[in-house]
Amino acid sequence: MKVIIAPDSYKGSITAMEAAVSIEKGVLQAFPDAETVLIPVADGGEGTMENLVAATNGHTKAVTVTGPLGKQIQADYGILGDQQTCVIEMATASGLNLVGCNELDPLKATTYGTGELIKAALDAGYRKFVLALGGSATNDGGAGMLQALGVELSDKSGNELSFGGGELTYLHQISTANFDPRIKECQFLIASDVENPFVGPNGASHVFGPQKGASEVMVEELDKNLYHFANLIEKETGIRLHDLTGAGAAGGIGGAFQAFFPSTMKRGVDVVIEHARLEEHLEGADLVITGEGQVDFQTAFGKTPMGVAQTAKGRNVPTIILAGSVGEKIHALYEYGVIGAYSIINRPMTLEEAMKDAALLLEKTTEQVCRTYFLTK
Amino acid sequence: MKVIIAPDSYKGSITAMEAAVSIEKGVLQAFPDAETVLIPVADGGEGTMENLVAATNGHTKAVTVTGPLGKQIQADYGILGDQQTCVIEMATASGLNLVGCNELDPLKATTYGTGELIKAALDAGYRKFVLALGGSATNDGGAGMLQALGVELSDKSGNELSFGGGELTYLHQISTANFDPRIKECQFLIASDVENPFVGPNGASHVFGPQKGASEVMVEELDKNLYHFANLIEKETGIRLHDLTGAGAAGGIGGAFQAFFPSTMKRGVDVVIEHARLEEHLEGADLVITGEGQVDFQTAFGKTPMGVAQTAKGRNVPTIILAGSVGEKIHALYEYGVIGAYSIINRPMTLEEAMKDAALLLEKTTEQVCRTYFLTK
Repeated sequence: MKVIIAPDSYKGSITAMEAAVSIEKGVLQAFPDAETVLIPVADGGEGTMENLVAATNGHTKAVTVTGPLGKQIQADYGILGDQQTCVIEMATASGLNLVGCNELDPLKATTYGTGELIKAALDAGYRKFVLALGGSATNDGGAGMLQALGVELSDKSGNELSFGGGELTYLHQISTANFDPRIKECQFLIASDVENPFVGPNGASHVFGPQKGASEVMVEELDKNLYHFANLIEKETGIRLHDLTGAGAAGGIGGAFQAFFPSTMKRGVDVVIEHARLEEHLEGADLVITGEGQVDFQTAFGKTPMGVAQTAKGRNVPTIILAGSVGEKIHALYEYGVIGAYSIINRPMTLEEAMKDAALLLEKTTEQVCRTYFLTK
Repeated sequence: MKVIIAPDSYKGSITAMEAAVSIEKGVLQAFPDAETVLIPVADGGEGTMENLVAATNGHTKAVTVTGPLGKQIQADYGILGDQQTCVIEMATASGLNLVGCNELDPLKATTYGTGELIKAALDAGYRKFVLALGGSATNDGGAGMLQALGVELSDKSGNELSFGGGELTYLHQISTANFDPRIKECQFLIASDVENPFVGPNGASHVFGPQKGASEVMVEELDKNLYHFANLIEKETGIRLHDLTGAGAAGGIGGAFQAFFPSTMKRGVDVVIEHARLEEHLEGADLVITGEGQVDFQTAFGKTPMGVAQTAKGRNVPTIILAGSVGEKIHALYEYGVIGAYSIINRPMTLEEAMKDAALLLEKTTEQVCRTYFLTK
């Protein structure tokens, strides 16, 4: 009996890795001899690097980089089990989680550290990258990241711009003369679920600025600056980011990658599924268990379980979904080979109780589901 | 595919019959061609008659009888599908549900109507009875029921006693000279889970009196009167009810049956399982689904599902339990062939919400469980 355990995180409660460990416990409670494969799946957001490293038996490397507000910090990049693919999770260098609530400043926050992280990996010889966006504190359109890799962003006087989306108003010229030449030798796969364009009412600043601390006035300023940046990028590269799908990811760094890097962009879950080699692991598997905090097909929730189920279905392995909440329209899941969607809640309780006990609830529900599925087979 | 649907009621929310209908909907959502057998199971308490009649395609007969407080009311007795077995549910003639909260009076409440119900069934020719106790408003030791069937309970002056447990203090003599002779030709199977004796601290008055409206002083008076009644019964029949297991059921009517009727007493769930012919229906069945409001093996909850599972296990049919709350120690269920115990709760919610939505939640969970169990078989 082989069970593939591929949950997302249960937001606000347990990480994807913790969820996978709980599910494994439940499987083994029911069947101590079961073979389990843990593939914690994130949607390209926070935890992606850690999950991919864990799922492939890879390792991490620590680098000192410039944090979002200019302080030197330590950040990790990951090397997958293939020893070739490097995972850069921008939140580790330029993330919201590195900034205190009262320090939030999207006008100043920079992606410079993310650029340094890429540079360190280039120095170490890596040429194949997975870029996990999401969770950024920045709204600089990737300007800092580009600067760290040699792109010159100068003002009218020829001076290099300072950090942050607020500075882009002074940008006069972009020069790629000293842009790190190794970038061209690389492949960058961007893991991102964000489809927003670079600017405008659906752009990076308007949609994601407020959660990074931008007031209404700041949002307008940041959007105007990114618009100016996009104009100059178009002049330099011929690539028009303004309305480009996904260019608004992570404060616009998605656009910078698309304009200056040999890159492709994919749904986070697909990137993780591919790199964690889910398809290979499905060989000979009897069941897949996935899940996340909420599964509801009237909303965007449930993308990770659906991606996992879809892949499993391709190999004729059925999927069980275990969620904190199971919402409406779950019938939509059936075509993806889902043979059961269960809530882990085992009695009337508050959201707080459910979040606090999520690990144990997940373990218990897994045990029951495995008994139901396997016991009479 | 054949599924046996045998739930108890979900107390305070849906009846066993309503639960069975919800579960059936869920089964048919998953597999429209499934064969379903509905056997709503009650523990001998309220709903037992209705459930047994439904499960066996029986029918009911309406009779005018004396209600617990002396008013004439209409009550039903049931005839099972075998056309021979008559089910008397005492709550329909002498039940708490027939009395308004501010009318409760265990000193006056009588079981006379239950006796009349039995008499009507005897007149109709029935000789095989199931007696469902529980839910009674009375504490008269079955005195009224005996009177309705010809037993004379007279005071010192030779006058017949009035109704209610309060009158028994005047009892001087019991005469069975005019006791309905047809009773001796009958079999009475008492369905009751109550093991309390007739009198004393664990007796009918002390344990069940308060929920029937007895104050502390009334409890003492009722217990003293039942003690006196038991003494006279012993003198008349030689049977000592005082400490007899189950004699305290339903205000002591359990004792009256044991002393004066050819009767045996069984757990309610076993009586229902037997008369609903669960064993027969299990022939060729693939799965049993049962459940109730709470399943927890640190408490007394879960008796019905366990009884059902035990019977199913005897025929090698696995059981799934669907409960409002799934508590601790459910591992104890596994030896009864339970292959899954699930809560029907599908998100964090209050007990009130869960009770309000129980029917739909039960249907949805059933659908998922059936998919998980059957889809890849």
